[in-house]
Amino acid sequence: NEAQQLDLNPHRRLNILTGEWVLVSPHRTKRPWQGKVEDLPEDNRPAYDPKCYLCPTNSRADGDTNPDYKESFVFKNDFSALLEDTPTDSYNQNDLLVAQSERGICKVISFSPKHNLTLPELSVPEITKVVDLWQAEFRSLAEQPWIKYIQIFENKGEIMGCSNPHPHGQIWAQSEFPVEITKETERQRKYYAINKSSLLKDYLKIELEKNERIIFENDAFVVLVPFWAVWPYETMIISKRHVQNITAFSAHEKELLAEAIKVLTTKYDNLFETSFPYSAGMHQAPVNDGNHTEWHWHMHFYPPLLRSATVKKFMVGYEMLANPQRDITPEYAANRLKELSTEHYKSKAQ
Amino acid sequence: NEAQQLDLNPHRRLNILTGEWVLVSPHRTKRPWQGKVEDLPEDNRPAYDPKCYLCPTNSRADGDTNPDYKESFVFKNDFSALLEDTPTDSYNQNDLLVAQSERGICKVISFSPKHNLTLPELSVPEITKVVDLWQAEFRSLAEQPWIKYIQIFENKGEIMGCSNPHPHGQIWAQSEFPVEITKETERQRKYYAINKSSLLKDYLKIELEKNERIIFENDAFVVLVPFWAVWPYETMIISKRHVQNITAFSAHEKELLAEAIKVLTTKYDNLFETSFPYSAGMHQAPVNDGNHTEWHWHMHFYPPLLRSATVKKFMVGYEMLANPQRDITPEYAANRLKELSTEHYKSKAQ
Ligand SMILES: O=P(O)(O)O[C@H]1O[C@H](CO)[C@@H](O)[C@H](O)[C@H]1O
Ligand SMILES: O=P(O)(O)O[C@H]1O[C@H](CO)[C@@H](O)[C@H](O)[C@H]1O
Repeated sequence: NEAQQLDLNPHRRLNILTGEWVLVSPHRTKRPWQGKVEDLPEDNRPAYDPKCYLCPTNSRADGDTNPDYKESFVFKNDFSALLEDTPTDSYNQNDLLVAQSERGICKVISFSPKHNLTLPELSVPEITKVVDLWQAEFRSLAEQPWIKYIQIFENKGEIMGCSNPHPHGQIWAQSEFPVEITKETERQRKYYAINKSSLLKDYLKIELEKNERIIFENDAFVVLVPFWAVWPYETMIISKRHVQNITAFSAHEKELLAEAIKVLTTKYDNLFETSFPYSAGMHQAPVNDGNHTEWHWHMHFYPPLLRSATVKKFMVGYEMLANPQRDITPEYAANRLKELSTEHYKSKAQ
Repeated sequence: NEAQQLDLNPHRRLNILTGEWVLVSPHRTKRPWQGKVEDLPEDNRPAYDPKCYLCPTNSRADGDTNPDYKESFVFKNDFSALLEDTPTDSYNQNDLLVAQSERGICKVISFSPKHNLTLPELSVPEITKVVDLWQAEFRSLAEQPWIKYIQIFENKGEIMGCSNPHPHGQIWAQSEFPVEITKETERQRKYYAINKSSLLKDYLKIELEKNERIIFENDAFVVLVPFWAVWPYETMIISKRHVQNITAFSAHEKELLAEAIKVLTTKYDNLFETSFPYSAGMHQAPVNDGNHTEWHWHMHFYPPLLRSATVKKFMVGYEMLANPQRDITPEYAANRLKELSTEHYKSKAQ
C-alpha cells in the first residue's frame, strides 16, 4: 500500500465523478457510541400479505388490481413525485428567486411476487428477469422525446425510507437533468475530451492492477469500494465495457450483472447478519440529448450501517454544512466485504 | 402569490448559494405513510447525570475533569475527526486516485451545566453567553494561520446522530475548504463581482418585501424559510448587516442573535410538541485567506421531521443519486412556523 501514512491519518480524497472531496478519519472508529440504536425490522413476513399493494392480485390506491404475476411487475407510482402533464411554467425575480416547472414519470417495480424475499434471496435467473425489466423500461421511457434522464433505484430497509418491505425498486424519468447527473456528466466529458478514453475505464484499470478495493469481478462487471467512498460500506458496480446505458447489455451481460448484484447484496447481508439496508441505483447517460460518449454505465450502493445491524453512520451537522466524512477507510471496508462468504447466512442456518 | 401555478405543480427551485436545484412536489403530501416510525427519545432527564461527560465535575475519556462551570464550557473533542499534528502528505495516481492530508481542531461546547435543557429552554441571556463563546472561539481559532475555515454547528436529537442529550454543539476548524463552503464562496463572489452588493443582502430585501417566507425579524436578524429549502422545515437566520463572520457582531447584535435562535427553536419545539431534532450551523467567510468581502454571515437549520414527531423525510434513493426532493412547499412551512407561539409548549403545560 503506497499511501500508508494517509491511511493512518486524517485526509481527504477526491471523488473523480463529482469533483467533490470526502474527509477520511481512520482513527475515529475508537469513539464510543452512546447514540441512537436502530430497531431491527421484523423478519418473519409471510410470502403473501393481503394488505400489501405490491403482492399479486391485491388492489392499489388508484383502484387498479395487480395481476397474478409470477416474475416481476411494473406500474406507475400512485403517489408520483413527478407528473406527466405538468404545464410548462417558470418564475424569476432578479435571478434570486428562480423556479421552473418539471415533468416526469415515476414507476414502481416489484422484484418478485413473494412478499418475504429480497434481492440476495432471489436466484440469478430471477434477478436477471429484473434486469430485463429495467432494460425494457429504460428503452421505452427513452422513446418519449421530452424525457432527458431516467433514474433507476432501490431503497431497501426501513431506515432508508422504504415504506413497504415487499422487494421493489423505482424509476423516476424526468424532463431536466438532476444535480448529481450534471456533476458526473461534466467530469466525464472533461476527462473524455482530454484523454479520449472513459474516466471509469481508466479508473477500473488502476483498481484492477492495485487490487486493494476490489470485492468481486466477472467477465463483464467489477464490484469495488470506490477510492472516494463516503458511506462506510459504499460500493460501485462498474461495467468493464464502456457503454452509455443499460440498453447496451447483451443477454449474457445481463446475467453477469444479476450475478454481481447477487454476490454483493449477499455479502452485505452477511456483514452484520441482517437484511442490509441501502439505497442503490444506476447512473447512466442522459437520453434525447445528443451523444454522450463520455458516459460510462455504473451502479452506486449507499448503505448507512457502520458498526453493527443497529448502529449507522450519521451524515449530519458537519457533513451537511461542510463536507462528507467517514470513519473507516475504504480499504478496510473492501477487505471485510471481500472476505465474506457468497452463501447467504439465512441459507446456512437452515 | 405570483408563482401560484408553480406552487401547485411539481417544479424545481434554484439554491442561489450553491447553484444546485431542489425538486418540489407539493401534491405528494397525500401519500399514505406505512414506513418507519421513529422512537421518541425519553424526555425525563435529570439536571445532573453522573455518567455524562459534559456535566460539571465529571471526568472525560482523556482523563480530564470538567470544572464546576456555571454557564457554558468548551474543550477539545476527545475523539476528534481532525488532528492538529497530522503530517503533510499527498497521493496522486494519474489524477484518478487523489488524496491529501488534512489538519484540524475539533472542539465541543456545552451550552449549559444543566443536563436536561436544550437551547429553546435557555433564557436569552443564557443563549447570549453561548454566542459570546462562539465568537471568542472563532476569534482565537482564526489566529492560527494554518486554519482556513471554522465550522460552528449543533446536532440536536438522536435521529440527527447526537450521541449525548446534554445540550452541546461542536466546532471543527480545518486547513482546507470544505465542499459546501467552496460552493457558497464561488456563488457569492460571482454575484458580488457583478452587482457590487452581497447576494444575501439583495435576497433579504426581496424576501422582506414579499413577506411570504419570513418567520421572525428583529433589528439585526431575519429568520426565514429559504425559497430553495430542501428539508421540510428548513430555515435560515440571516444578518441584516453584510458582515463576513461572527466577530463583527456587537454586544447588542449578539443578544439579538440569541433572541432569534430562541424564537426559532421554540417554534420548532411547538410544531409537533416535541424536542425538535435538527442539525444547525453557521456559514461564514474562510479565514487567513485574504479578503472575502463577498461573504455574508448566515446560519442554516436542517430539521428532518416531516409529518409528526415520529415521521421524518428520508433523503434516500432518488435524492442521493439524482436530486434533493421535498413534499411540502417552503411557503406552507413558513406559514406554519410563523403562526406558532413563541411560548414553549412545556412552559405552558406547567
Ligand atoms: O461528533 P459526534 O457527536 O460523536 O458525532 C456526530 O456528529 C459528527 C459531526 O457531524 C458526525 O460525523 C457523526 O456521524 C455524528 O454521529
Ligand atoms: O417513494 P417512496 O418509497 O414512498 O418514498 C421513499 O423514496 C423516495 C425516493 O427516494 C423519497 O423521496 C422518500 O422520502 C422515501 O420515503
